[in-house]
Formats: sequence, C-alpha cells, structure tokens
Amino acid sequence: MSIAVDLNSDMGESFGPYTLGQDDALLDWVSSANVACGFHGGDPRVMGATVALAQEKGVAIGAHPSFPDRVGFGRRDMVMTPDEIATDLLYQLGALDAFCRVAGVPLRHVKPHGALYTRIAADADLAHAVAQTIARYRRDLILIGLPGGEVERAAAAAGLSFAREAFADRAYNDDGTLVSRRIVGALITDPAQVAHRAVRMVLQGTATTLLGGEVALQADTICIHGDTPGAPELARTVRAALEANGIAVRPLTEVLQRRAQANRLTDAASTPAPGA
Amino acid sequence: MSIAVDLNSDMGESFGPYTLGQDDALLDWVSSANVACGFHGGDPRVMGATVALAQEKGVAIGAHPSFPDRVGFGRRDMVMTPDEIATDLLYQLGALDAFCRVAGVPLRHVKPHGALYTRIAADADLAHAVAQTIARYRRDLILIGLPGGEVERAAAAAGLSFAREAFADRAYNDDGTLVSRRIVGALITDPAQVAHRAVRMVLQGTATTLLGGEVALQADTICIHGDTPGAPELARTVRAALEANGIAVRPLTEVLQRRAQANRLTDAASTPAPGA
Amino acid sequence: MSIAVDLNSDMGESFGPYTLGQDDALLDWVSSANVACGFHGGDPRVMGATVALAQEKGVAIGAHPSFPDRVGFGRRDMVMTPDEIATDLLYQLGALDAFCRVAGVPLRHVKPHGALYTRIAADADLAHAVAQTIARYRRDLILIGLPGGEVERAAAAAGLSFAREAFADRAYNDDGTLVSRRIVGALITDPAQVAHRAVRMVLQGTATTLLGGEVALQADTICIHGDTPGAPELARTVRAALEANGIAVRPLTEVLQRRAQANRLTDAASTPAPGA
Amino acid sequence: MSIAVDLNSDMGESFGPYTLGQDDALLDWVSSANVACGFHGGDPRVMGATVALAQEKGVAIGAHPSFPDRVGFGRRDMVMTPDEIATDLLYQLGALDAFCRVAGVPLRHVKPHGALYTRIAADADLAHAVAQTIARYRRDLILIGLPGGEVERAAAAAGLSFAREAFADRAYNDDGTLVSRRIVGALITDPAQVAHRAVRMVLQGTATTLLGGEVALQADTICIHGDTPGAPELARTVRAALEANGIAVRPLTEVLQRRAQANRLTDAASTPAPGA
Repeated sequence: MSIAVDLNSDMGESFGPYTLGQDDALLDWVSSANVACGFHGGDPRVMGATVALAQEKGVAIGAHPSFPDRVGFGRRDMVMTPDEIATDLLYQLGALDAFCRVAGVPLRHVKPHGALYTRIAADADLAHAVAQTIARYRRDLILIGLPGGEVERAAAAAGLSFAREAFADRAYNDDGTLVSRRIVGALITDPAQVAHRAVRMVLQGTATTLLGGEVALQADTICIHGDTPGAPELARTVRAALEANGIAVRPLTEVLQRRAQANRLTDAASTPAPGA
Repeated sequence: MSIAVDLNSDMGESFGPYTLGQDDALLDWVSSANVACGFHGGDPRVMGATVALAQEKGVAIGAHPSFPDRVGFGRRDMVMTPDEIATDLLYQLGALDAFCRVAGVPLRHVKPHGALYTRIAADADLAHAVAQTIARYRRDLILIGLPGGEVERAAAAAGLSFAREAFADRAYNDDGTLVSRRIVGALITDPAQVAHRAVRMVLQGTATTLLGGEVALQADTICIHGDTPGAPELARTVRAALEANGIAVRPLTEVLQRRAQANRLTDAASTPAPGA
Repeated sequence: MSIAVDLNSDMGESFGPYTLGQDDALLDWVSSANVACGFHGGDPRVMGATVALAQEKGVAIGAHPSFPDRVGFGRRDMVMTPDEIATDLLYQLGALDAFCRVAGVPLRHVKPHGALYTRIAADADLAHAVAQTIARYRRDLILIGLPGGEVERAAAAAGLSFAREAFADRAYNDDGTLVSRRIVGALITDPAQVAHRAVRMVLQGTATTLLGGEVALQADTICIHGDTPGAPELARTVRAALEANGIAVRPLTEVLQRRAQANRLTDAASTPAPGA
Repeated sequence: MSIAVDLNSDMGESFGPYTLGQDDALLDWVSSANVACGFHGGDPRVMGATVALAQEKGVAIGAHPSFPDRVGFGRRDMVMTPDEIATDLLYQLGALDAFCRVAGVPLRHVKPHGALYTRIAADADLAHAVAQTIARYRRDLILIGLPGGEVERAAAAAGLSFAREAFADRAYNDDGTLVSRRIVGALITDPAQVAHRAVRMVLQGTATTLLGGEVALQADTICIHGDTPGAPELARTVRAALEANGIAVRPLTEVLQRRAQANRLTDAASTPAPGA
C-alpha cells in the first residue's frame, strides 16, 4: 500500500462584485476544497458555484467557517463564548451543506478559517465547542486542524476524525509552531523548495526550521494557499513532486483510512500474540 | 373526520441585543412556527433557541427566509434575479435546517417573509425560483403562501404541497387581496372579531370585506401576527373560538392530509362508478 | 476662454481583503474622484487611502453614496422611502467628509451610485430627497447626474449646482437614454472611438446613437468607468484627445464657473441694451 | 460657584425594527447623550431622530462609536490595529456629525462604547489612536473615559479635554476598577442607593467598594445606564438627589470649565505671591 496525502486549499472566498483567488485553476491539483460559508468570504452565489466546480473536478468539499468579520476577512481574533462559536458554526455548516445536498455531493470535512483556526489550537473551551458542534451535526465529518493542540484533543473527545495539517509554504519554529507572517522568511515562495518540503514532510515526517533545525511533523493534509499569484503553479509543482516520489494525492477520507490500517498493522506487529 | 386548520406565527425575529415578539407565549397557541433565518431577523443563537422552544412545545417548525435586508426587516422590495433569490433561499434553508437536525426535529415548511412573500404572489419567475429551490432541497417541504397567485402555481409545477394562508386580523378587498396597512381599518385588533373571522374562514370559506361584501377564501393556515402587544391573547382567543366551533388546530402536514382525503372522497362521490 | 470638461471616475470601491479598480493609475488622468462611502463598496481604510491619493494627485473629491447593498454592489433597485434615502445619504456624506476634513481637502461633489443614480433620474420624490439632503448638508456641493431628468430638476429646486454627466463609452438610444448593458453594442471599448465620442460630446454637444442617429448631449463631466481592464489607458487616451482638440480637463467647480460665465455673456449679447 | 456634574446616557441604540432603551424619557434628566453611530447600534433614521430629540430637550450630543459588531452589540473584544480603530472611529464621528450639522447643533463629546471603552483604558496604542483621531477631527471635542488609565493619558497627549466618568449604579473594587457584571452585587438597582452614591462621588470624591472599603473617584460625569427597565426613574432620582445637595447638573463643557477655574484658583492660592 503506497503512501498518500491530501492537498487542501481555501476556496469560494470571492464576494459579490469581488473576485479572490484562482479556484478554478487550483481545483485541478488539490484533493480537498475548503469552501467559505459567507462569514468572512463567500456569498450564496459563490458557494453554489464553488460546490459545482469542485464536484465537477472530483475534489472533496469541506466547510471553511469563520468568525463573523467580513471586513477583517476573519483574521482578527474576537472574544466569543463557546455558545456563540457553536451556533455561528452550525449556521455556516448548514448553509454550505444545503448547496452540497442539492448538488448531490457529500460534505466531507470542516477546516476553521483564520483567527478561529488559530484560536482553537490553543483554547480548550472553544476547541470543544467546535468539535462537539461538528459531531452533533454529523459524526463522520473530518476536522482539519493544527496537530498537537487543543483542537486535536477536542476532536478525539468528540469522536471525530482529525486530519493533521502541515504548511509546506510556511516556515516553522523549532517548537513546531508557525513563524509569524511578520517575520522575514515566514513565507516560502519558491515552488521547488515548497515541493521539496512537502515531500520531506510526508516521507520523513520532518521539516527544516527557520533556524536550520529539524522539527517532527505528521501531515495528513498539506495546505496550498490560494491567495498568492502563483498558487496554481505552486500546487501543480507540489503535486508533481509528491507523485514523482511515490506519494499519492488522495482525499482525506482515503488518507485517514490508510493511516488507520497502517496503525492496525503496526499494532498487530508490535503486539505479542495472545497466549505467547 | 373533523375539520382542521393550522395556526402559524413568525418567530425568532429577535437579533443580538434586541428582542422582538413574544415567541414563548405564542408557542402555546399556534401549531406552526415560521423561524427567521438571519437575513431580516434572527441570528444563530436566536435560531437555536427558537427551534428548541418550538420542539419543546410540539409546534411544527418552518423556515421564514427573506430578502437580505436587516435594517429594513425584509419589508422593502428589491430587484433580484431568480438566481439571487434561489441561492439566498437555499443558504437560509440550510442554516435553519442545521439547527433542526442537531435538535432531532424535522423542518416541515417554508413561509417566505415580507417583501419576498408579496413579490412571489405576483412574479412568476421568482415564484418558480422559490418553489424549485425548495423542491430541490426537500420535496416534502410545504410552501405557505397567498392563495391564487403565482406562488401557488409555482408550487404545483414544482410538485410541492402548498398551504393557502389567510389573515384573520387583516381586512380584505372585494377582489380577495389584502387592504394596504396604510388604510384605516386594515388591521383588525379586537380579539373577538378576529376569532369570529377565523371561524367563518374555516367553516364557510368566506370573509367580510372592508366594504361590507363577501370574498371567498380557502384557508389551510391562519396567520397570527406576533409583533402586536396582545398577540398571545389574540392567539389564545382565536384558538379557543376555533375549537369551540369544532375545528381542530393541527400542524400543516395533518391539515393537508385531511384535505387530500376529503378531495378524494369528493372525487369518488362525484365520479360515475366504472362500468356505470 | 477655452472650453473645459471634467473627467470623473468611481473610486475607493475596494473592501476589506478585496481590491477593485485601478484607482492609483486612473487618478493620473481624471479630474474628479467619486469615492465610495461603505454602503456598496469601500470601508474606512479604503476611504482614508483614496482621499489621500486623490489629494496627492490634485483630483477633486466627491462622495459616491449608494443603496445599502454590499453583496449586490448597489446595483439592485430597492423600494425605499424618501426619508430612508435622505438619512442613508447623510450618513455616507458625513462619513466621507470626515476623512476629507482630517486631510484638509474639501469635499466638492456628490455622485449617487448604481441603482440610486438611475432611480433619481426618474423618481421625483427620491430625487428631491437626495438634492434637499445635499443642500442641507452643504449648499455648495455639486450634484452629478443624468441630464434632463428628475434629478436635474430637483437640484435646481434645492439651489444646488448640477453637473450634467455623459458616458463616452456607453451607447445611447435615439431618445438620449443609455442602451441597456444587456444589449450587444452597449459598451464601447475601443479607446480611439471612445475618445472621438468624448471630443464630439464636448465640442458639438452630440453623440451618434446605436442606430446611427444623432442625439444632443450637454456634458459638464464625462464618466470613465474604472472597473474595466484597460480603464487607465482609456482615460489617458480620452484626456489626450480632449486636450489635442483644445479642450481643457478641469475640475467641476471650474467647468461650471466657465459655463456660468459663458451663459452670462450669451445672455448679455442676446439681451437688448437697457434703454435701446 | 456651585459644584456641577454631568449626567450622561447612551442613546440611539435602536436599530431598524428594533427598539432599545427609553431615550425620550431619559433625555428629561441627563445633560449629555452619547449617540450610537451604526456600528453596534443605531441606524441613520435612529441617529437623525435621536439628534433631533436631544436638541429639542437641550441635551449635549456626543458620539458613541464602537467596534464593528452589531450582533454582539460591540461588547466583544476584537484584536484590531490602531489604524483600524482610527479609521472606523473617524467614519462614525463624521456620520453622526452630519446629522448634527444639518440640525444646527454642535457635536460636543465622544464616549467609546462597550469593548472599545474598556480596551482603551488599558491599551496605550489604541488609546492614542482614539485620542489622536478625535483631536485631528476636532480638537475641542471632549473625550469621556475611565479615569486613571491609558485613555486619560492619551487624551492629554493629544491635547483633548478629558471627562472622568464614574458609575453610580456599578460596584467598585478596592483598586478602583469596576466589579465584573458576572459577580453578584455588581449592579446596584435601588434608586435611592444609586443616588446616594452619586452624591458622595461628587461631594466627597469617594465610593464605598463591594468589600466595604473606600475608593477615591473623580467624577466629571456620571453614567446612567439606559437599558434597564427603571432607567428614567433612576435618572430622575439621581438628578433630584444631586440638586437637593447643591450639585448642579450641567453639560460637560460647563463642568470642565468650572473645574479648570477651580484648579486655577487652587493653584493661585497655593502659589506664593510673586515677590513674596
């Protein structure tokens, strides 16, 4: 059984008269589309069109919910209660799911956006509100998040599958956190280098840090940022490099199944036979 | 089999710090709750709480979608394309349905709000956009609307059940349209008079018009406006009068089933036996 | 005294994460900037930056108020009362003016946007609401609008200077109205042709219509649409052609002063001398 | 010269179909109205009506700007940059000022709302953004804020008059901060007790704390919360008690002038005569 990884990208963030990103071109290379739900980007026309496009290209569809902050694009942290987070999330999940249901395509995953994504990596109460709400809505949805933080624990507690996300185009600190965008070198823009990092992340489970060290990373899915000019070319390059190294790009459901199988095999191999 | 009618009321129109209506008290008397979906009133907290309250009191839940106009409370007509109407509607349906699904209670009907309600009584293109969208989302949802207009035809074309709505507290013109709210006498506020009109609408299928004439009305559901001070008392009075006259107040699904059965009986009685 | 005309363009319609138009490049060629006020486009950061840019390039600043419809970009007609129009307009005027006052640059004109612009050409009540509100705010503001309609009459009644706008890149009907954008040939994209039309509008006061006829047009200001890819090049070409034909591109205050002077000269020449 | 204090209340927080507060009744008793500017409450109709009402009753008008968070009523803290705060504030100031200018009544003061009010008491960068923006807009506007914090320092640095606010209906901690609303006893609802506290604040410059201690307080203005049922009666009682104790209720401009004069007298008295 070969190794597999998912490539995900944020999509459907255009709004009204405004176009953002290059969804059409990116959908040729990624395996998961995180579709904005109208709180930071997207509107009902954009949501319908994005679902249709992802469906046509066979890309798995997930929700990309946010804090309610359109002018700030969901990037500004807000003090919200767990109930506010839970109800805003449920509203967005249902709204996007309606477009999926009418199109006859399943909603597969949820990747919180921007400040909400960052917040639930560290805030246990909000992480639980997010994970419990998703599980109440549909227990088979996959939650994409930053590995090792509160959101991973909350997903486990809620019985949700959790997909560990890595960023091939972002520099890491030695402790495994992301280097702030305000620091020089935080963004890696050379496609060859990003592709090389993606391959190492999957095959070796490590990334070179900003200071030259090594950090361990488990990646079920690698994020391709769609708001940079060369995003489709970057996605193409990363995918080609992964495949050239024997890594299949597959939707998350398949990546997580393979991981579960591999874990069972490992467990079986390392477990003394009963009666031994 | 006794006669039955549904009583419906708009609900969940509070927003953020603002309270509107007396949902809790009204839910003791009505059989259908039309829950605002956040475009003219309501927010995710209000939606969740309203669904919970209606579920607790055994009242059927429907969506109350609107034009996107919070400051105008969805009462201002807007020029929108069928695609804009369809996608805005689908977004709102899904958002409310998420709260229903998590609560384990079915979404039963859709009653468009304000200017959208009025518009689709007369505009065939938009009426079809609304009916087709609801049918694509769930073919068993009931569409509540003004009888005899484009929306009733569009519901039939889309294969949707249509519930004919009457207004016991509003004056009618001789042609069966509603008297404009700006005209003196348009609103009937005396509970006894409203109750009497409701009973006549159901038993005799008529209403006395503003000018003293009679107009024929078919009512599957009677609307109780919730934004007047005495709304709960009015609802109580109307319900008591209906029941005192042998009319059962029942959810729409049951009212429409009874009507269908009655129609079949009538058809059977009036159809010559085969071979006769 | 040479002939002069104003060139105006809509500006500051970007919003939050979204960029729209090419304001910086256009400001090199136009003499008036209509700055969005946050109801259809623009946000406080964009407003401040656009005012600063126009001030730096010596371009006159005006307000570009709209119906409250961000997702529809103010292009959808809405049924609003004169009071709703007046108060929404006043809010937007004051908001933009605050940025002008802090920058120490005067607000010079008002050009309503989109559906509001079209509406007040035909609706006398709303045209009066707009003109009276502007006059109450500052009687020396210039109102830009479609000539010959209700808005021109309302400006006169309110004592406001009115600038007659012509569209060099839009086809006209024989009755002087604009050809609908949905009809082939409605938009003229060849810069040389647009420039030629602009020159004829100013020098001869006429435009060739879609059907090949001629229509009389009085143009104090010519609109350059900023949302087309080649807008800055188009603006440069139009300005060069105007200047090559001896037409000065000047702000509206100067254009209207010249017109007033010319009118006085004409009146004087055509008036019999007192005592004659 | 008698002692004077200002009574202020938040106003104009109704929105669209929603009514909040009892502005009309409160305006009979307070001397300053803080008018919401549309970001947390208020809309252009409400703003115009509130300005007219305050003008009619001779109450000084100020702006009550907020974070952009209508559903959260501006009570949720948000991470915003100084530039975001400054531009949002300027937009709101200008919008409200337009209604004042058209009415021919001066804008007198600014009292930030909710989370923004609390934030700038502690965050120096944002406090400076607020104070500098107000000063750039109009240097004679008075900034109302929590005494002793960053906002008072920022006002001084910007050359703005600062009005120190005290809360007669809120419990204080021994360190002079307000007791959190979530703690029992945080809100004082007995009118007599609130009135007694208000008198002591002005005459003695102290308040009894939740734990029974005494805390020093300098109050140029006392806040009357308008969103409680008995707010007008509370305001009436407080005003009557103040006046019965020889304290005049006067607008802030007068209160601050008296304070300045008193300070000069004190300084003169405590300064050795020149040549002494």
